[in-house]
Amino acid sequence: MTTSMFGEPIARREDPRLLTGRGRFLDDLGRDALAAAFVRSPHAHARITAIDADDALDVDGLVAIYTWEDLPDRVGEPLPLLIPHPALTHGRTGLPLARDVVRHVGEPIVMVVARDRYLAEDAAERIRVEYEVLPPVVGIENAHAAERLVHEDVPGNVGAHLVQRVGDAPGAIDAAPHRLEFRLDIERSASMPLEGRGVYARWDADDGSLRVYSSTQTSTSVRMAVAARLGLPPGKVEVIAPDVGGGFGVKIMHPWPEEVLVPWAARLLNREVKWAEDRREHFVAAAHERAQVHRVRVGFDDEGRILGLDVRILHDHGAYTPYGIIVPIITSTQLLGPYKPGAYRVEFSSLYTNTVIVTPYRGAGRPQGVFCMERTMDRIARALGRDRADVRAANFIGPDEFPYDQGLTFQDGRPLIYDSGDYPALLVQIRELIGWDAFEDERARAAAEGRRIGIGLGCYVEGTGVGPYEGGHVEVDSAGRVHVSTGLTSQGQGHQTVFAQIAAAELGVPIEDVTVTTGDTRRFGYAVGTFASRAAVMSGNAIALACRRLRAKALRIAGEALEADPRDLEITDGEVHVRGDRTAAIPLRTVAVLSNPLRYAFDDETRRATQFAVGGRPDEPPIAPGEEPGLEGRDYYSPVRSTFASGMHAAVVETDPATAEIRILRYAVVHDCGRLINPRIVEGQIHGGVAQGVAGALYERMVYDASGQLLNASFMDFLMPYATEVPHVTTGHRETPSPLNPLGVKGAGEAGVIPVSAVIAAAVEDAEGIRVDAMPLSPDGLFRLRRRAADEPGLRIRDGSAARPATGR
Amino acid sequence: MTTSMFGEPIARREDPRLLTGRGRFLDDLGRDALAAAFVRSPHAHARITAIDADDALDVDGLVAIYTWEDLPDRVGEPLPLLIPHPALTHGRTGLPLARDVVRHVGEPIVMVVARDRYLAEDAAERIRVEYEVLPPVVGIENAHAAERLVHEDVPGNVGAHLVQRVGDAPGAIDAAPHRLEFRLDIERSASMPLEGRGVYARWDADDGSLRVYSSTQTSTSVRMAVAARLGLPPGKVEVIAPDVGGGFGVKIMHPWPEEVLVPWAARLLNREVKWAEDRREHFVAAAHERAQVHRVRVGFDDEGRILGLDVRILHDHGAYTPYGIIVPIITSTQLLGPYKPGAYRVEFSSLYTNTVIVTPYRGAGRPQGVFCMERTMDRIARALGRDRADVRAANFIGPDEFPYDQGLTFQDGRPLIYDSGDYPALLVQIRELIGWDAFEDERARAAAEGRRIGIGLGCYVEGTGVGPYEGGHVEVDSAGRVHVSTGLTSQGQGHQTVFAQIAAAELGVPIEDVTVTTGDTRRFGYAVGTFASRAAVMSGNAIALACRRLRAKALRIAGEALEADPRDLEITDGEVHVRGDRTAAIPLRTVAVLSNPLRYAFDDETRRATQFAVGGRPDEPPIAPGEEPGLEGRDYYSPVRSTFASGMHAAVVETDPATAEIRILRYAVVHDCGRLINPRIVEGQIHGGVAQGVAGALYERMVYDASGQLLNASFMDFLMPYATEVPHVTTGHRETPSPLNPLGVKGAGEAGVIPVSAVIAAAVEDAEGIRVDAMPLSPDGLFRLRRRAADEPGLRIRDGSAARPATGR
Repeated sequence: MTTSMFGEPIARREDPRLLTGRGRFLDDLGRDALAAAFVRSPHAHARITAIDADDALDVDGLVAIYTWEDLPDRVGEPLPLLIPHPALTHGRTGLPLARDVVRHVGEPIVMVVARDRYLAEDAAERIRVEYEVLPPVVGIENAHAAERLVHEDVPGNVGAHLVQRVGDAPGAIDAAPHRLEFRLDIERSASMPLEGRGVYARWDADDGSLRVYSSTQTSTSVRMAVAARLGLPPGKVEVIAPDVGGGFGVKIMHPWPEEVLVPWAARLLNREVKWAEDRREHFVAAAHERAQVHRVRVGFDDEGRILGLDVRILHDHGAYTPYGIIVPIITSTQLLGPYKPGAYRVEFSSLYTNTVIVTPYRGAGRPQGVFCMERTMDRIARALGRDRADVRAANFIGPDEFPYDQGLTFQDGRPLIYDSGDYPALLVQIRELIGWDAFEDERARAAAEGRRIGIGLGCYVEGTGVGPYEGGHVEVDSAGRVHVSTGLTSQGQGHQTVFAQIAAAELGVPIEDVTVTTGDTRRFGYAVGTFASRAAVMSGNAIALACRRLRAKALRIAGEALEADPRDLEITDGEVHVRGDRTAAIPLRTVAVLSNPLRYAFDDETRRATQFAVGGRPDEPPIAPGEEPGLEGRDYYSPVRSTFASGMHAAVVETDPATAEIRILRYAVVHDCGRLINPRIVEGQIHGGVAQGVAGALYERMVYDASGQLLNASFMDFLMPYATEVPHVTTGHRETPSPLNPLGVKGAGEAGVIPVSAVIAAAVEDAEGIRVDAMPLSPDGLFRLRRRAADEPGLRIRDGSAARPATGR
Repeated sequence: MTTSMFGEPIARREDPRLLTGRGRFLDDLGRDALAAAFVRSPHAHARITAIDADDALDVDGLVAIYTWEDLPDRVGEPLPLLIPHPALTHGRTGLPLARDVVRHVGEPIVMVVARDRYLAEDAAERIRVEYEVLPPVVGIENAHAAERLVHEDVPGNVGAHLVQRVGDAPGAIDAAPHRLEFRLDIERSASMPLEGRGVYARWDADDGSLRVYSSTQTSTSVRMAVAARLGLPPGKVEVIAPDVGGGFGVKIMHPWPEEVLVPWAARLLNREVKWAEDRREHFVAAAHERAQVHRVRVGFDDEGRILGLDVRILHDHGAYTPYGIIVPIITSTQLLGPYKPGAYRVEFSSLYTNTVIVTPYRGAGRPQGVFCMERTMDRIARALGRDRADVRAANFIGPDEFPYDQGLTFQDGRPLIYDSGDYPALLVQIRELIGWDAFEDERARAAAEGRRIGIGLGCYVEGTGVGPYEGGHVEVDSAGRVHVSTGLTSQGQGHQTVFAQIAAAELGVPIEDVTVTTGDTRRFGYAVGTFASRAAVMSGNAIALACRRLRAKALRIAGEALEADPRDLEITDGEVHVRGDRTAAIPLRTVAVLSNPLRYAFDDETRRATQFAVGGRPDEPPIAPGEEPGLEGRDYYSPVRSTFASGMHAAVVETDPATAEIRILRYAVVHDCGRLINPRIVEGQIHGGVAQGVAGALYERMVYDASGQLLNASFMDFLMPYATEVPHVTTGHRETPSPLNPLGVKGAGEAGVIPVSAVIAAAVEDAEGIRVDAMPLSPDGLFRLRRRAADEPGLRIRDGSAARPATGR
């Protein structure tokens, strides 16, 4: 591999197009399509007793109204349970349109298709649905109490219950010199991609084929789902993810009811049909995450080394479990971070509530796990009066201990084995970047000015590049253009840039010659999807492998033409030549022509160079057995297990003694995602992640009332941070290549968000001297904490002044 | 391979659809598309001096008018010379729209696009093109005289001149005991597919992609041509051959000017544009064939064995040579048929004329070659007074002489080596089928009734399954459906049936589960095309190889699930099971689900059976290196050389002494195309071929006047035979498997047409006692021959009565 492009911080190639308004997002397509709108449940829990659409029939431009009764068998079936798990004994999924019972506000009941969205909404408003309201289950405590049931046939509202054990944690805790026990709460939240979900479908009656555009993170899986529901061969369904304005996990769910219904209606009506989610729909009909309660028991020695850890998790899964129990599995396994916990016991109960379903949201259970573990580390340090960083260091897996088996089963059903890392080095780096060792002086100076400041630290390890596979395809055409494709989708991460860098480096071609197609089943039919920080690891390596195949083929063909041993050849600037000698070079476009016994030259020069070129000797077939025409390479990357990125964040915050405002003064990240393909893009991912983490730590939450109404289902009430609330982030890289894949890379997409709540909590705690056990923390939340701490001394970690005790930084 | 389907005469699966009007031909598509029409040259040779479109601008519904000046560089370039050859020293191709000079009536000059075809034609009629008329070159003699030139820079009008020699033919002839010398003439004709050419294109501006439907025999090559001309990556051009109503060779030419111009206009206008050739356009703007003059010298011994053969061919190539010189190369090499000619010398000159271009038409030069060789055999027999069949037998290659190298270079640039055959056995068969040995009694009985009857025989060998390759792909989806695709196109030959038979037999699945897609670049991107009787050989074998790959994969996966050795497994009725034991069978749909680590089951039963199935062991990647997800197989078949089918036709004709009507009383065919995939379809091909051969022998010709006007450019004047003119054909099969390919098959598509002119000529000659040296032969032609024979005794092979001399049957 030449390394000219690999590792360079080049600018994102997609940005000129996107920044000048030339992006083509879902709702930019199908301007003449019919529009769909949905009648959705206004109740969190209710029985539908009647649907009367008569008044809607007068709406001019109305095309169709569909209830569950109108759906044919396959279309009307319950949505699939995508990731079954033996522990998910009571998995439940909804129907594309509700039949009898609705279980959260926003659940779709009627689909209306009309000439445009306005008319569709008008008609939807005229449809009268009668309900018998049932008592709702809202919130973890309510679900756990199980006085009411979300699903009549799910006792205790428990969809899944899973225990994992490494050693005898309860015994180790009981025998430990020190013990702590506490509870942590993380509130429900959700990603808010700029672009909501959306589907646009058109049926080609002549061809018997369906084209579906979806703002999805997995076009291949949408294809399989739509094909199955509509009874079409997958080859007759094309699913394309156009430009997608953010996903963050919510768009990996599939099929959404709308992804089934819109294509079905398009075929039935033989008309183009489109539905673009509006913001309120995204709040009440997409997916949420995060809400968990942790009960922690930990035993440790005098150095702060954990001897036993027991975590019991209650996980709020919302009304259904179409995506399985990935989120609490990740929380319970990734919780351990860079640490060796001694004995470990973790259990979770996944609870149904009458709220929006839970599916992975960037970080996917890890922010909760890291919050738990890092809060635990801070507690231990305080209990022992030791430096918080030192306590962490005492628990680290050493750099010489890889591969390190945590003894657990990871989300992919495989052993949780870390591939590589250097946590002590990262700790040195983050201490330096944030100014850890000089912080007491800084605090003293601030205190002298009457200011309260605090410092916090958070460490994480993130399983990235989850399998089972991705594929890559690369083709050089007769004009010398390099076409790279992979099945997974892009939601703005910069795949056009990094995949092109990989291809340019592997092939020895200028990056300008490389185009990248993602998420288009016409180009690549097999894929898993974009989630779990897996795109660069999975498709990046698949593309590299595909390029290596193409390269070998190109050298073989050029070797015949140059009468040279392919092993003596290399490719520079898109030309094959003898190593170190470019006098007799063959452009790849010529190799492309020669690769096909039919000589499709695109220009006169190449035509002349190739028209009489012999395609093999007379006694040999023009295409050797096992070979194919064309200068193409295709390969799959399918890892034995995940790569484990790691990192540490630290922040210095200031809290206002009067207003309880929390300001982040400094924020530092050190991050190790193996070899960097493009440091600029990795930093962008980290910065974006930190922004989303800050949102989760301080601003964003889903506020449900007792009846299951989401009270802040708009951007008027749901607080997203502006750039003004997001700190400048100082970033340090470290590269511990993964030994698991050819490129030595690990994932970087989610890392930024993971430890932020833990870090902010630690820093606020450190500034205030009051225990922070719940997130997010708003100024009024902090204000209430201060008032409670006045009554409950147990909440205080030291007296409330800015002055700091000698121990327990 | 199970053989349940292979070789069975099952009914054509496409017929219910086609016979009930559910075919979708080019003009059935794009009903709302804009229409294109062309202003074409009314002169055979002229210089364009001015084009005035002003009057056309008033036509309501006019969208655009394009002349050559409007075409961008690549679009306006001369059309490609598809098959270059070193002997084609003066190859010339036309422009998509003529610029300065037009060289045949019908050459396109202006393209008009309008709301519908009527308006487009109205506008085209108002466009005034001014010409300076140039002297035309019409007919072979005129071209050969070279007093006028078609292309100023092509001396003697000779585009190509090629000599091939095996031994010293002139010397052998001079030294032979017997010698003959004569001339043969074959007139110009053309195939007349029910459906003419047509192109329909639509541009997807969002996607930057083009979809082109073309009534073509090679969608992949059209794609490459359109991509090159329009500067698009091939991946952005989809070309689909929908149902195609006959091709016969004329649709293997590409790109036709219209195939470039219509897609170009569709993109430029961002509108759907369609052009469907009308019948007059097909006469004057598509392609013709057949016209050749042969001068033969032959030397032979007393047994009739040829010692030396020298053939000089003048080939009328029309105005341009976009398809190269394949036709005269085939004539000059395939002329030899089943015979060992001793020494052989053949030369041809390919001559330009101001007439429609020549490209291969079913038989592709072979009818002319066989006419020459079989006329020669008959001459020798008569000269020696020997039985015509016996003379042939004396010259046959023996059944033990294969592979037999004719010492020539074939159309594919490779040595002309016959793979297998049994010509003596065929001769025995045809003598029996036609009643050869009892014919003299029959003739005597007829003569007694005052009727003239005659018998004729013709033998041929046909190179079929020409390379370089075709590919096949097969996929079993999670519903158990088997999707077969290949890149080459179908023009009604029954590919839906025979390819499905092959797949069903190879995979062990019911044929009802198999669908076949051809000629759709979305499904298979590499192909050569449908011509040269190659579809069954090339794609048939490619599909078989693809199925074998899929089968091996299915057995491997099922073996894991059944804990059985794949070698012990077989597939019956779509289920994998231990050989001879179907108790524990796994349906292929389940294997399909298991083939992808993502379990996309389409039904509950399969979902339950597969949802927890482990995808590999924890220490192994879910997809092994070199493997791919999905139950698919893809492979290519690329032969070292062609397969050589063979056959013999014989006919008994009656000529009316008064009206000179020629009636075919009996017609028999014995045919050896190796292993038969479907005898019913092979017979259909033979019957259709004989019908087309009878047309060429007795009815169809292109009548040009001296100014280059085609006088019979309509079905009012161009005589196509009705079913009433086509004889019942008695068919006998023989199967000499080809050793070159896994299925042992040879091609059968063209065979029927090849020897018909030779056979009819021989039979008429035999009935009339008058030499027949030219074809086609109409009643008035026979009448003229009779009159000439009265003056020229050399034309008589015996006296004109129905009585027959003892020698020279």
